[in-house]
Amino acid sequence: MLKDPSTKYRAFPPVDLPDRTWPNRTITAPPVWMSTDLRDGNQALFEPMDAERKLRMFQTLVGIGLKQIEVAFPSASQTDFDFVRRLIEERLIPDDVTIEVLTQAREDLIRRTFESLRGAPRAIVHLYSATAPSWRRIVFNMDQAEVQAMAVRATRLMRQLADEQPATDWTFEYSPETFMSTELPFAREVCDAVVDAWGGTPDKPVIINLPTTVEVSTPNVFADQIEWMHRHLTRRDAIILSVHPHNDRGTAVAAAELAVMAGAQRVEGCLFGNGERTGNVDLVTLALNLYTQGVHPGLDFSSINEIARVAEDCTQLPVHPRHPYAGDLVFTAFSGSHQDAIKKGFAVQDPEGIWEVPYLPIDPADLGRSYDSVVRVNSQSGKGGIAFLLENHHGITLPRRLQVEFSGVVQRETDAVGGEFTVDRLWSLFEREYITPASGAEQPWVLRSHRSDDGANGTHVVLEVAHQGRPVTLRGQGNGPVSAAVDAFNRSGLLHGDLRVDDFHEHAQTAGAQATALTLIEVAIGKAPPTFGAGRDAHIVSAAMQALVQGVNRLVRRDAVQAAA
Amino acid sequence: MLKDPSTKYRAFPPVDLPDRTWPNRTITAPPVWMSTDLRDGNQALFEPMDAERKLRMFQTLVGIGLKQIEVAFPSASQTDFDFVRRLIEERLIPDDVTIEVLTQAREDLIRRTFESLRGAPRAIVHLYSATAPSWRRIVFNMDQAEVQAMAVRATRLMRQLADEQPATDWTFEYSPETFMSTELPFAREVCDAVVDAWGGTPDKPVIINLPTTVEVSTPNVFADQIEWMHRHLTRRDAIILSVHPHNDRGTAVAAAELAVMAGAQRVEGCLFGNGERTGNVDLVTLALNLYTQGVHPGLDFSSINEIARVAEDCTQLPVHPRHPYAGDLVFTAFSGSHQDAIKKGFAVQDPEGIWEVPYLPIDPADLGRSYDSVVRVNSQSGKGGIAFLLENHHGITLPRRLQVEFSGVVQRETDAVGGEFTVDRLWSLFEREYITPASGAEQPWVLRSHRSDDGANGTHVVLEVAHQGRPVTLRGQGNGPVSAAVDAFNRSGLLHGDLRVDDFHEHAQTAGAQATALTLIEVAIGKAPPTFGAGRDAHIVSAAMQALVQGVNRLVRRDAVQAAA
Repeated sequence: MLKDPSTKYRAFPPVDLPDRTWPNRTITAPPVWMSTDLRDGNQALFEPMDAERKLRMFQTLVGIGLKQIEVAFPSASQTDFDFVRRLIEERLIPDDVTIEVLTQAREDLIRRTFESLRGAPRAIVHLYSATAPSWRRIVFNMDQAEVQAMAVRATRLMRQLADEQPATDWTFEYSPETFMSTELPFAREVCDAVVDAWGGTPDKPVIINLPTTVEVSTPNVFADQIEWMHRHLTRRDAIILSVHPHNDRGTAVAAAELAVMAGAQRVEGCLFGNGERTGNVDLVTLALNLYTQGVHPGLDFSSINEIARVAEDCTQLPVHPRHPYAGDLVFTAFSGSHQDAIKKGFAVQDPEGIWEVPYLPIDPADLGRSYDSVVRVNSQSGKGGIAFLLENHHGITLPRRLQVEFSGVVQRETDAVGGEFTVDRLWSLFEREYITPASGAEQPWVLRSHRSDDGANGTHVVLEVAHQGRPVTLRGQGNGPVSAAVDAFNRSGLLHGDLRVDDFHEHAQTAGAQATALTLIEVAIGKAPPTFGAGRDAHIVSAAMQALVQGVNRLVRRDAVQAAA
Repeated sequence: MLKDPSTKYRAFPPVDLPDRTWPNRTITAPPVWMSTDLRDGNQALFEPMDAERKLRMFQTLVGIGLKQIEVAFPSASQTDFDFVRRLIEERLIPDDVTIEVLTQAREDLIRRTFESLRGAPRAIVHLYSATAPSWRRIVFNMDQAEVQAMAVRATRLMRQLADEQPATDWTFEYSPETFMSTELPFAREVCDAVVDAWGGTPDKPVIINLPTTVEVSTPNVFADQIEWMHRHLTRRDAIILSVHPHNDRGTAVAAAELAVMAGAQRVEGCLFGNGERTGNVDLVTLALNLYTQGVHPGLDFSSINEIARVAEDCTQLPVHPRHPYAGDLVFTAFSGSHQDAIKKGFAVQDPEGIWEVPYLPIDPADLGRSYDSVVRVNSQSGKGGIAFLLENHHGITLPRRLQVEFSGVVQRETDAVGGEFTVDRLWSLFEREYITPASGAEQPWVLRSHRSDDGANGTHVVLEVAHQGRPVTLRGQGNGPVSAAVDAFNRSGLLHGDLRVDDFHEHAQTAGAQATALTLIEVAIGKAPPTFGAGRDAHIVSAAMQALVQGVNRLVRRDAVQAAA
């Protein structure tokens, strides 16, 4: 039964602005970018980033070229407070980067915020308070005058605390949270009042940041709201007008673009659209959209795969395969006619060097990527494809580190031999590399047979192996066959360091009683990086023993090559 | 080094339309929806859907309420051709649904297309040809007149073939592919010519579909292009104006919305934005955006999780955790202040029944979902959270079917006991349910010890168990310990049907020689649905035996409850 929405939802009222000018404008210069990955993005994660991840994200943002980075909500958590202190005390903030922190309008939180910033060379202190009618009524139970007085009182205190720390170059930012649902005249009134309370001037402007805390209208309505504010704010020359769009209606990128046309000078967002609920506007898409319009965004995404991996690791959220610029699938053409047109486009060189390849709005090389037809999974960007094909055709789920390792193997094979990669060829390569090396390939260790006995003192294992062609019997003890076999290798004295198992995974490759187990074991010797070996057998112990021996062989071969180099 | 884009990309030229009217309009009625999940969506997959998946997707689309469904590109593949035949011959098309098929402008392909549709009660035949300058030059090497003549010739042939099959109610659709980059006067000229060639009338209008085959401008420019066509097409009354936006700039939803304001009456797209490269416009977001504006989209997404699972299964692509309406995270509030505001919003009931909960633009219940704070992973929508927490804190990756099963267990526990779900409580629940039942819980089978011997004829296993409290020795044979243990259970005659193992997974829970293996085994008895058991031990065989016995216990308990009911 379809519900009747007229009983429950109401349309967002349009803005009366018939003489709007933004639809006649185009964007000819980038806005000031502000990354809130470490604040809005961070607070919206299953698990907020730890200090190490925060620092990695901060340094990645600096590397991209962000000059304003909201690094924390220091009064809300000790981790955030400590991170701000660390950036300042360890002098990790480059001279051309300004950190920003957020605070609510409460005296204790504001004092704590300024405490976190002690000794910072430059800082943006960002005050927010909700201004929309339903928030005033439901959340605060305050009228307009009370809401405005609270913001002004907080701003005055912040001015006073800033004056008490004159060594820092302060910038003040105010966000009327839930601006998108606030009556425009009241939004202007509050913003005007805080600009006055701080004392903004054309030389030292205040940042007035207008968020769609929740996106509630088509993006043209937001643009109208921004143009209205742009025209009506009293001290417009003492203000940097900023926007902070969320993506509840899937139109945050459009909202930001139209807002810039309407007068916004600054945009707050996150890499790949991270942020509360549906996310903040995606800074990657927004910046690269400018790039393809001939406007340099002032940000560097020339190694976008690397940036995507950092973001995925820090947020533990995936970049979608159809993400406009970083998705695994966006430079992949599947239909024959598209592949054909793209091929022709690459063949035709425009005499002026203008990019004009059908179906590819941007040169993948500008992002450090390459164009892949679906069957040529030949680069980093094809990792998703490799994992997908092996999972669907061979029931094997590759752990992330093995995906990375194996995509390097595929890359080398493609570079050396070329051609298209079918799933069968992919699987043969995997088998040859990890399970059954081609005859003739150097195999330092060959497993002939194994036997294990479980007793009161754990498991005892006997491995009959050939080492460099000579038969050897290895014996070891452990709390299971894998640990006993590791012990056996280590007792042999024939390895160049201590062997250990970092991880293992086992999967049924087919269903039923006759199932074959595929075991993936990650092994390492000493301090050298780990690698993988795989084994396949109906017997799970046999599969594990084979995987271990293959892992050892791959380690020994690799380390020998490196020692020789 | 930042590149200088002015040497490589150029800005998209704006449309000269100072008297545009669309920015003053709002959307008050839904467009006609057309799903191209089975065509544009399908051709952009790592692996196109097989017949069974295609049918499942078709029936899901019908269930949502789609009345126009592009089901195939029948001249391009035998699978597609056969699928169209099957829909017609097995009478799978409801009376109020019209199927649509795509063809290029070549005589042999057009004839094959009409052949595929023989006997269809109604059909839309969809012709496309590329019209933009760079496609004309690079791909076809044709001038404007030649491109137009090709489209007209194809349309005339289609008219003739349609007249030869008068039992079918035909609708004609034409797409000037790459419309977004085509000179507007030429786009109008081609469209006018094909409308004439077909003989469109107000009673039997032609669909003119204007795609952003590649999205190349801000969405307001696309809206200007649509308004220009809307005003200039000669036989506007004989045309249904349609759009087909792609998402290369991340603004497809906005482009579709603004286009509808500018005069488009019909939108083509896919569920969750599937489609070539960056995808087609997302029909789910577009439809539900209308819903929250008080306009009923005429589509039913009241069980959005189920629809998302079908789409994920058919496309093998994930729905992103921040997808505006279906993402795992979008009804999850992480920050304390958001949680607090939402709580207050739920407590305050608007007297007119208007939805007004802070931070939640739509009532999750309208989508068959629920609101979860991060620590209350208590519903289907929290599945992602459960899987995430167990993976990150306990190194255990749950297979998809186990995720679904376990989220039901969590749901029941929350309903019964309530309260917040920390990761420790989650893990205890998992342990109690799958690994170590609470003492006192009914345990039909208890494993006392096991022994296995590997010989020339395979593995022989001896299990010492207690069955309903009585000691029993089970013996079985197989090609490994798991299959031998399954055999031992089956020989006992004490189960109510044939036991089998459908799947198993094994993970190291900690690194190093002392690693503990966690084994997950999916078991089934007879034709009843499978379930999971888990075992944990340093010895991989012991872990597998424990998992098997727990799986059997869970099956026996469940089937006993169902038999008693």
